[in-house]
Amino acid sequence: MSAVLEPATLSPEMLHRMDAYWRAANYLSVGQIYLFDNPLLKRPLRIDDIKHMLLGHWGTTPGQSFIYVHLNRVIKKYDLDMIYVSGPGHGGPAVVANTYLEGTYSEIYPDISQDEAGLQKLFLQFSFPGGIPSHASPETPGSIHEGGELGYSLSHSFGAVFDNPDLIVACVVGDGEAETGPLATAWHSNKFLNAATDGAVLPILHLNGYKIANPTVLARIEREELEQLLRGYGWTPYFVEGDDPELMHEAMATTLDRAIEQIKHIRHDARVNENSTRPRWPMIVLKSPKGWTGPKVVDGVPIEGTFHAHQVPLSNPAIHPEHLGLLEDWLRSYRPEELFNEDGRLKPELAELAPEGDRRMGANPHANGGMLLRDLRMPDFRDYAEDVPEPGVRGIGDTHVLGPFVRDVMKRNAEQRNFRVFGPDETASNGLEAVFDFTNRQWDARTIPNDEFLASDGRVLDSMLSEHQCEGWLEGYLLTGRHGLFNCYEAFIHIIDSMFNQHAKWLKVTSGLPWRRKIASLNYLLASHVWRQDHNGFTHQDPGFIDHVVNKKASVVRVYFPPDANCLLSVMDHCLRSRHYVNVVIAGKHPAPQWLPMDAAIEHCTAGIGVWQWASNDQSGDQDGKPDVVMACCGDVPTLETLAAVSILREHLPELKIRLVNVVDLMKLQPQSEHPHGLSDSDFDKLFTDDKPIIFAFHAYPSLIHQLTYRRTNHKNLHVRGYKEEGTITTPFDMTVLNDLDRFHLVMDTIDRLPQTGQPGVRLKQRLQAKLIEHGQYIRKHGRDMPEIRDWKWGKTMTARKN
Amino acid sequence: MSAVLEPATLSPEMLHRMDAYWRAANYLSVGQIYLFDNPLLKRPLRIDDIKHMLLGHWGTTPGQSFIYVHLNRVIKKYDLDMIYVSGPGHGGPAVVANTYLEGTYSEIYPDISQDEAGLQKLFLQFSFPGGIPSHASPETPGSIHEGGELGYSLSHSFGAVFDNPDLIVACVVGDGEAETGPLATAWHSNKFLNAATDGAVLPILHLNGYKIANPTVLARIEREELEQLLRGYGWTPYFVEGDDPELMHEAMATTLDRAIEQIKHIRHDARVNENSTRPRWPMIVLKSPKGWTGPKVVDGVPIEGTFHAHQVPLSNPAIHPEHLGLLEDWLRSYRPEELFNEDGRLKPELAELAPEGDRRMGANPHANGGMLLRDLRMPDFRDYAEDVPEPGVRGIGDTHVLGPFVRDVMKRNAEQRNFRVFGPDETASNGLEAVFDFTNRQWDARTIPNDEFLASDGRVLDSMLSEHQCEGWLEGYLLTGRHGLFNCYEAFIHIIDSMFNQHAKWLKVTSGLPWRRKIASLNYLLASHVWRQDHNGFTHQDPGFIDHVVNKKASVVRVYFPPDANCLLSVMDHCLRSRHYVNVVIAGKHPAPQWLPMDAAIEHCTAGIGVWQWASNDQSGDQDGKPDVVMACCGDVPTLETLAAVSILREHLPELKIRLVNVVDLMKLQPQSEHPHGLSDSDFDKLFTDDKPIIFAFHAYPSLIHQLTYRRTNHKNLHVRGYKEEGTITTPFDMTVLNDLDRFHLVMDTIDRLPQTGQPGVRLKQRLQAKLIEHGQYIRKHGRDMPEIRDWKWGKTMTARKN
Repeated sequence: MSAVLEPATLSPEMLHRMDAYWRAANYLSVGQIYLFDNPLLKRPLRIDDIKHMLLGHWGTTPGQSFIYVHLNRVIKKYDLDMIYVSGPGHGGPAVVANTYLEGTYSEIYPDISQDEAGLQKLFLQFSFPGGIPSHASPETPGSIHEGGELGYSLSHSFGAVFDNPDLIVACVVGDGEAETGPLATAWHSNKFLNAATDGAVLPILHLNGYKIANPTVLARIEREELEQLLRGYGWTPYFVEGDDPELMHEAMATTLDRAIEQIKHIRHDARVNENSTRPRWPMIVLKSPKGWTGPKVVDGVPIEGTFHAHQVPLSNPAIHPEHLGLLEDWLRSYRPEELFNEDGRLKPELAELAPEGDRRMGANPHANGGMLLRDLRMPDFRDYAEDVPEPGVRGIGDTHVLGPFVRDVMKRNAEQRNFRVFGPDETASNGLEAVFDFTNRQWDARTIPNDEFLASDGRVLDSMLSEHQCEGWLEGYLLTGRHGLFNCYEAFIHIIDSMFNQHAKWLKVTSGLPWRRKIASLNYLLASHVWRQDHNGFTHQDPGFIDHVVNKKASVVRVYFPPDANCLLSVMDHCLRSRHYVNVVIAGKHPAPQWLPMDAAIEHCTAGIGVWQWASNDQSGDQDGKPDVVMACCGDVPTLETLAAVSILREHLPELKIRLVNVVDLMKLQPQSEHPHGLSDSDFDKLFTDDKPIIFAFHAYPSLIHQLTYRRTNHKNLHVRGYKEEGTITTPFDMTVLNDLDRFHLVMDTIDRLPQTGQPGVRLKQRLQAKLIEHGQYIRKHGRDMPEIRDWKWGKTMTARKN
Repeated sequence: MSAVLEPATLSPEMLHRMDAYWRAANYLSVGQIYLFDNPLLKRPLRIDDIKHMLLGHWGTTPGQSFIYVHLNRVIKKYDLDMIYVSGPGHGGPAVVANTYLEGTYSEIYPDISQDEAGLQKLFLQFSFPGGIPSHASPETPGSIHEGGELGYSLSHSFGAVFDNPDLIVACVVGDGEAETGPLATAWHSNKFLNAATDGAVLPILHLNGYKIANPTVLARIEREELEQLLRGYGWTPYFVEGDDPELMHEAMATTLDRAIEQIKHIRHDARVNENSTRPRWPMIVLKSPKGWTGPKVVDGVPIEGTFHAHQVPLSNPAIHPEHLGLLEDWLRSYRPEELFNEDGRLKPELAELAPEGDRRMGANPHANGGMLLRDLRMPDFRDYAEDVPEPGVRGIGDTHVLGPFVRDVMKRNAEQRNFRVFGPDETASNGLEAVFDFTNRQWDARTIPNDEFLASDGRVLDSMLSEHQCEGWLEGYLLTGRHGLFNCYEAFIHIIDSMFNQHAKWLKVTSGLPWRRKIASLNYLLASHVWRQDHNGFTHQDPGFIDHVVNKKASVVRVYFPPDANCLLSVMDHCLRSRHYVNVVIAGKHPAPQWLPMDAAIEHCTAGIGVWQWASNDQSGDQDGKPDVVMACCGDVPTLETLAAVSILREHLPELKIRLVNVVDLMKLQPQSEHPHGLSDSDFDKLFTDDKPIIFAFHAYPSLIHQLTYRRTNHKNLHVRGYKEEGTITTPFDMTVLNDLDRFHLVMDTIDRLPQTGQPGVRLKQRLQAKLIEHGQYIRKHGRDMPEIRDWKWGKTMTARKN
């Protein structure tokens, strides 16, 4: 440590006070894990002062409190706008203790007051029924990152600092967490940060050496290797290492000052000197013992500095009475009487170490992003409408129509800098290339001639091939009060299934906390979907993300299948304005028929489901009219195939009364009792009848439709076609044939359910079976679909029947 | 390049021949992408020689062929046992071309013969309906890694070399792929490799600079940073860089020799000198232009060496006639007349460059693992049985009973070294600590005193906190003909949802390829499940992996819920013996009641579903007897709560005839037409009646049961309770209360559906509602469940009624 040679950063008095503050945080942490009563140890500890179930994780806690106390000092010294992200799992006691000590906890939860009674409640509630979890959970002031599942702390932190030029996120990365894939690649986020217009992330790799039962990899490689690794990731690492608190305080203070000054220097260089070289941002490696300051040895087993410190070091004082004495010794080792007044309040000379007001990390509004959220300035999506003079006109690809709208959302919000598009190298591939008319991809690494749309001030985060980073960055961006859109191949959104889980859980819990303000929705645009993986094949086909999504709380999840471009515009406008949901929008990017003029599209999307009269020949406008069959469809390709099937049926079996129902908002299908969007049973029955066959062509796995509708009156007559895990590289139409979703199968399904079609029905089936054989022969010879499929257009033989 | 100073590795003649071989591979690759006919260019290229749909990815292909050709040389020179893993997406043309040139392709697919007719078919089938995909798909000889989704090449490669001491996997890592999280952490796999008993992975980072539309991060950081990064990951990188083929051949040959010799040296050092220091294995960074040797500029746009080379450089000769000439020039630039005889066969002086027989990478049996698969030596699982003298005796935790069985599977197969346990730092936490009686965790990084169960010859791969690595390693291990078990927390198995997808797709496709031999099943043990996350809370609760699993082909997926330890033993024995499935087994680790003696457990698990007569009081043994209600349960906690509910009902409403059905094999519920395990409708109706209420307590999300059973006769009377996304840190019993799955709710549900219970039913409901309030008060006061819940034991009041 250089502290020996230079003037000390901390005066002895300051060091003493900071150590006392740290001891107070540690005392509160141990108290949370163990104490049922006797919070100030005013009397000797008794067995009934201890909770029955001892749940918690001591290991990471003292190190995190150490960091927090030191961050408080630099926040005050440099007047920093800083929040804290707790990456290691189960660091809750540290964050709760520190936000309690700084006062924010009691402001939000007045019942947990800054006195002896409040202390007792603070201790009791931790990991206790009716209380709080053991992570930096949504209930924890100052948290945007629960850290229950590991691996996303750095991505969240980068998301938070994009477009927040004054913000610093101090991100504690656990050395266990650091072994996860998402974290291992997140270090590269520094190639996507603009020192002039974004804030800074200060990673603090907490090398306490152990996970649950194993050492960590980064603690057991050579120091030289670790330093190479971090420098290779593009960082400038500073090491703070030891276990003697006095030396460690001085080392940490000196190092933090150095890091903050380096961040300020980088900012100045970028903002004043306009230096655009990618900086090597500072980071800290804090190597301290796991379970630091806790019991050294229990029952002959070393605890401090080993994985045995991971959870509760003294696990059962009720059974091992000698543990009670050890626990009391441990608690008293922090000398609570020096830290708290008689009434349980932190002594004023310690309390003044914390920052004030919004500078307190527990009170910083960035960590309760809804407080900072401003509405987007929205262009009128009607202005981007496709002209649809008649159903079936050929479109350019639905997401290509959406592109200019998204571009203009970016443009209109360029000044307030609160909207971004995220994608794993797929934004152009997904049809949103129009955004590059206005902005670039944010990229801070080297550029060379012939690069396209790369710039350090780009607003599209699309240049890293990692769904995990896109998701993590966007979550961090939303959680700090901004808006965004994640575009992704449908199949590979499963890569972030587990991240979606955690975000949906966060939304569910925060929507029940009055002090947590609502944030913008997490919007997914899944283009490049299962039906049009013509050149990628089976590995790129999986429409099951929505099955995963609908398992989460109905109050936070929404799924949309706009059948054409105007519907996509209407749906996306709605999603971008919404709050506190996860919206999944599935749309096509390939040229495809358009069905609805904008007014009709708006009406249809607002209803979320409805009859397309112009394609139907029943009297569904009339309450009494009943069709012979309901042809339902959900998704762009199923809609096309259903309309083609209807067209065949109406031409060949003109007596048949057909009703066409299109579903945009998938959750309309579920009963009202299960989802707020669900249709009432009577509305559902009006659409689907109570006794007629329903042929339902669905974008995804058929079972999901059954799962959503099994309680409906007419479910017994519901026949669903969808993706059944058959596919390869083949033609677009052949993909539907492989899965029995094509127009011919849909017609045959209908005939099978309608014996009244008689001989004409039988003959039509035979003809279609022959047609399927012909199709197979044709594509194997020519490598593309038959002209009659490629050139098919709605209404060729039915113009007269259109409304 | 050092080649200037030292004697050349390649003689001019050898270099010339290798370059010709490479040109042949490139010619075949371009042919696959473009040519419909005229495979040897015997006449000038015409527009109808070109496929209608041009699908494929040129960018990565020439670099991969370059590598393959050079690997062939070292295989011959050093007589290496080597396979090839193609990490970058869409490298199919290269691998197909090379396995065709070496002869394996035509051996497997005789129709694709080594002559002009075969060439034409080879070209036509690529990315063509009825043909083959654009990746190193299952159809590709020598492939264990499709590379459709990116990120898993290194993990698969390490999985392949564990316990294969003579094998080297040459793993081409794409620089796009390298940005994914799973790949970014996979470099650390070298800390888990034993140079004495495992093979070697030779990573070749293919730095061709671009992804779909973006540059890659690793190509745009400074060379010094890249080298630091790779050294930090623990590798010794060698750089081969350029675009002049002649210089590049020499540089690659020299570097490959150096790498192979270093691998041999490391092996010798470990195996003969018994040096156990972690080696710094060699790796190669190959920096070559994307689309190398392809068109330089098309329509004024630079192609070679830019992202424009990613897919098809000349995209539409039909529309741009000048492209036809460019394509012909490009094809002829490889001088096919020098490479192939008149009959289309590769010239013998080139053909002899390939290795022979099984040394050819397309024919190496490791890449068709079923060929090497040997049955496990299985201990008799009955020997590990829990003694269950009567239903309800307290067990030690089901996975703790399983542990010794798994340990002995390891022990019995220690000699043939073909079984391993994988887990993300959770093997002890999941209750399998017994395995450490016999073996250790494999760990090749530094150890210190107080470490537990770490050794370089350990057989448990459990020391890396990465579900991605566990999954990838295990897949690689299975694909090369070995067996394994992945133990994981239930919620976090979602992290590998997308990897599971790809593996299930691989199994589906390979099961349709006669030459692909079946491999051992991928077995998941999901302990630490949703109901017992007492101390981890809401973030750790998600039972939805099985919803994801059942979307895949029924022929490859299986799901088991053993209700107690003896059932778990029976199920796991079955899974470990099975082939070519994904088996998901969900089991508890906490002390819990045991229900079945081993004989009964075997019978029950063999049936997969059945009535528990001893808990029922209907006459279900008798075909005529019909219960008033069927109480069904699936999962350990639901089984406990159901039995407790039955107990309450039988005590308080003794007239009620109750049948208890327990489900072990979830897919029994689905119709036979949908899943091979499905019960026939008549068998289902026998169990569940055709008209009586069914109260079904389920481990996971209730909708899954409806999804599986909606076609069953009595579905309308099926009432399911399960996890409904409610949870926090609380007591075990309170978790069931929060989700209405507890015994009291189950009784109330029953009464609600049975008006005949009359006043006694109403009074019982009232009493149970009061009990639930009492429960809430108790846990909030005491922090644990009421004694009557904790101490509840089946049969206390019903001994007389037991069979």
